[in-house]
Amino acid sequence: MRLTKFTDVALRGVMKLAVLDPDDSQTTQEVSAAVGVSYQHMAKAVARLRSLGVIEATRGRGGGLVLTGLGRKASVGWLVRKLESEDEVVTCEGSSPCPLRGACRLRSALRGAQEAFYASLDPLTVSDLVGEPTRQVLVGLIGRREA
Amino acid sequence: MRLTKFTDVALRGVMKLAVLDPDDSQTTQEVSAAVGVSYQHMAKAVARLRSLGVIEATRGRGGGLVLTGLGRKASVGWLVRKLESEDEVVTCEGSSPCPLRGACRLRSALRGAQEAFYASLDPLTVSDLVGEPTRQVLVGLIGRREA
Repeated sequence: MRLTKFTDVALRGVMKLAVLDPDDSQTTQEVSAAVGVSYQHMAKAVARLRSLGVIEATRGRGGGLVLTGLGRKASVGWLVRKLESEDEVVTCEGSSPCPLRGACRLRSALRGAQEAFYASLDPLTVSDLVGEPTRQVLVGLIGRREA
Repeated sequence: MRLTKFTDVALRGVMKLAVLDPDDSQTTQEVSAAVGVSYQHMAKAVARLRSLGVIEATRGRGGGLVLTGLGRKASVGWLVRKLESEDEVVTCEGSSPCPLRGACRLRSALRGAQEAFYASLDPLTVSDLVGEPTRQVLVGLIGRREA
């Protein structure tokens, strides 16, 4: 069972931004370098996180990305649901649809299991994710700010 | 969130074999054609299912694959755990390991969510999966036996 790389990258970015001081911000370049992913991957995740209202960009000299209040309080279950597509865990439809798809007990069982996965993340907030010992590691991860 | 194609194929094969009459068997070719997957994919899944003791091959003229007693009673949660690799839902280790991997609250949360996914499938057996209306569809899927 796998989550997408996109979700992984987005969650790392959110966690890094969640440990910044209140008046601090970081660029996409800094965040991506800090958490060990490519700039291109992080830029795509940042665009989605901005559209979700989880992060926002501050302007001007020294400007960059910050976590919003909504982002800080966001449920991890909600966030992962939004970052993953609406797809099912196996491909029932599509160009080569499964002949069972109309009346499949497996399909409904897998939908239930997928919901159990997300539900287990619902009580957790982004702030919870960056409690110790994770916070200390995140604070120590320094990404270079581009010139 | 996705399961592997391998797991999908294996589960379809198990379900098809679960609705055969007690003295009937089917070849890999027949099963793969019936459930709409390639012979090559089904052959790989069959090898794994045999090693798990879920299906067995009968010899001689008219021989083929049958579900074992263990296969019929197997928990879907157990089976999906066995078919999926032991991997985590995101890649923390590997050639480009995540810098958070040693002290990551997200990692432990995702492990818990993964376990919740499997646990929701634990009470279900293979026999449960082929109850109506799924049984009727499965019985009607006919794969050609190779000459």
